[in-house]
Amino acid sequence: MTAIRAWAARAAAQPLGEYVFDPGALGPEEVEITVEHCGLCHSDLSLLDNAWGISAFPLVAGHEVIGTVAALGSQAKGLKLGQRVGLGWNAGSCMHCESCLGADQHLCAQLQPTAIGRNGGFAERVRAHWAWAVPLPEDLDASTAGPLLCGGITVFSPLLNLGIKPTDRVGVVGIGGLGHMALQFANAWGCEVTAFTSSADKHGEIRGFGAHRVVSVHDAQALQAIAGSLDLILDTVNVPLDWTSLMATLAPKGRLHIVGALTEPMPVNTMGMLMKQQSVSASPSGSRAAIASMLEFAARHRIAPQVERFPMRQLNEALAHLRSGKARYRIVLDADFA
Amino acid sequence: MTAIRAWAARAAAQPLGEYVFDPGALGPEEVEITVEHCGLCHSDLSLLDNAWGISAFPLVAGHEVIGTVAALGSQAKGLKLGQRVGLGWNAGSCMHCESCLGADQHLCAQLQPTAIGRNGGFAERVRAHWAWAVPLPEDLDASTAGPLLCGGITVFSPLLNLGIKPTDRVGVVGIGGLGHMALQFANAWGCEVTAFTSSADKHGEIRGFGAHRVVSVHDAQALQAIAGSLDLILDTVNVPLDWTSLMATLAPKGRLHIVGALTEPMPVNTMGMLMKQQSVSASPSGSRAAIASMLEFAARHRIAPQVERFPMRQLNEALAHLRSGKARYRIVLDADFA
Repeated sequence: MTAIRAWAARAAAQPLGEYVFDPGALGPEEVEITVEHCGLCHSDLSLLDNAWGISAFPLVAGHEVIGTVAALGSQAKGLKLGQRVGLGWNAGSCMHCESCLGADQHLCAQLQPTAIGRNGGFAERVRAHWAWAVPLPEDLDASTAGPLLCGGITVFSPLLNLGIKPTDRVGVVGIGGLGHMALQFANAWGCEVTAFTSSADKHGEIRGFGAHRVVSVHDAQALQAIAGSLDLILDTVNVPLDWTSLMATLAPKGRLHIVGALTEPMPVNTMGMLMKQQSVSASPSGSRAAIASMLEFAARHRIAPQVERFPMRQLNEALAHLRSGKARYRIVLDADFA
Repeated sequence: MTAIRAWAARAAAQPLGEYVFDPGALGPEEVEITVEHCGLCHSDLSLLDNAWGISAFPLVAGHEVIGTVAALGSQAKGLKLGQRVGLGWNAGSCMHCESCLGADQHLCAQLQPTAIGRNGGFAERVRAHWAWAVPLPEDLDASTAGPLLCGGITVFSPLLNLGIKPTDRVGVVGIGGLGHMALQFANAWGCEVTAFTSSADKHGEIRGFGAHRVVSVHDAQALQAIAGSLDLILDTVNVPLDWTSLMATLAPKGRLHIVGALTEPMPVNTMGMLMKQQSVSASPSGSRAAIASMLEFAARHRIAPQVERFPMRQLNEALAHLRSGKARYRIVLDADFA
């Protein structure tokens, strides 16, 4: 294999620069993907800033890849050269533990994230275990599909796995990169959809994503009006909220489900939860089967993230835009290696 | 109807004394039950001590009643005079809300507990809405069945409603009044059962209730040995625990389910929960259908609380025994009104 050109940070919170590395021999179960597009996710920022204290430099981030299969290891299964695939947060798992064999590869103890301890998708080519390179449905727009592979599956997986029915009432907290996809999925799932937001200026746009109702998390009266009504609240933000007010909008047997990376412990009123038989749960990303199911569902319902596109050589500008909090709602980088 | 003799507290934490009251006319949907036996539950103590600040005196506690139908209101359904029934924590619900019509009567917003704001089972006779007087299977021992109606259903309902499979690994925290029944139910459910206890002296007895393994919550090494293994932990105690150590014994997709009355908020590490797709939940008692199902299951599997029996006239002695923490494991009072 020839060297791979990429964009890497040499140290935490430093601008990215060009970087060339030798990927070594392709493993028997690996595939190599020529990157066409790669989403820029908030967790790329966390990795590049070493916010979680686990980053190693030089660091090639990027984990929302759309591309085509450029090379197949001798044992790589189910893929063809040239086939278009998506690669998300995870690029490998052991394939033989209870979780892997039980179709929960995303819970494997040996899980290998795409851009932690290895080179991710801000590159000419990226590698993954064959199982994590998921064929893209032909009628899905490749140029915007990248964010489905991380943010999309993160909000879709709960709908699929928590027994959510089309008759259920679903709330989505935080209408950003994840939340605006969650609204689309929950609407297409058939649910009554409530968007919780702290910004008063996006209500029209939020309805456009599929919310039947928009409620400000700071409006006590509006929260009171929907008390005891929601079957599921999907919390996509990574900051503590007024949990008591939020949980009060849950119906009996309702569930608050967290997909945001909250670092502080959440104080749970278990007596309140007990009286109404409620729960608090959380989940990361999704399994290989869930990703394939999500992509098919997105294609059928024409669900796509709203993206702003940058040529990959403008990665630093794209990062600055993401940092500014003004990205609406996801950023996609188009690979433009000469 | 004639007056009803009972045992009542005149004020918080005072000894109980004889008490006679006029129950008034029987409502059309009510039944009156002649009390044969009534369990003494820790929540009776909380009510008699006004620990929750909601008690009104004189107070007739008791909510684990076994008795026979003495009178039927004109609209009471499904019961016959003289039929043996059980009555638990709840004695009434509205019957027309979403929860009631959805077979979750125990989550009704108008739920009427048996011994709050009305007279409970430490009496000659007790009343209830017909739906909450549940026919007792004939092969269930009436003299020990009382505690099934409150403690029993509380630990059975999670097995029934949380999708617990016989192949699952279940932990039970706190081997007392609730926990010793939980071990029996989980064992009969087919599960691998781990008992968590803080007392080293009951291990043999605990295995006798159905635990395959007994682990001290203070033994870090023993906890480490079962790290990541349990699908469900049923927490029956009402004191805060080392939640981090306990949650570490949960498998991916595992659940910590609370049935104890914890008054302090529980600090939940949502990031840890997210990585392993876990949940924390809670539930109270159970629905009418779940109670009937539990009684049938208990009869088939010969599940019964281990009880100490007192004549009802020794209620104060029984209360003192319960307060001492030495009750093994539930107390049943046999009605002995002359």
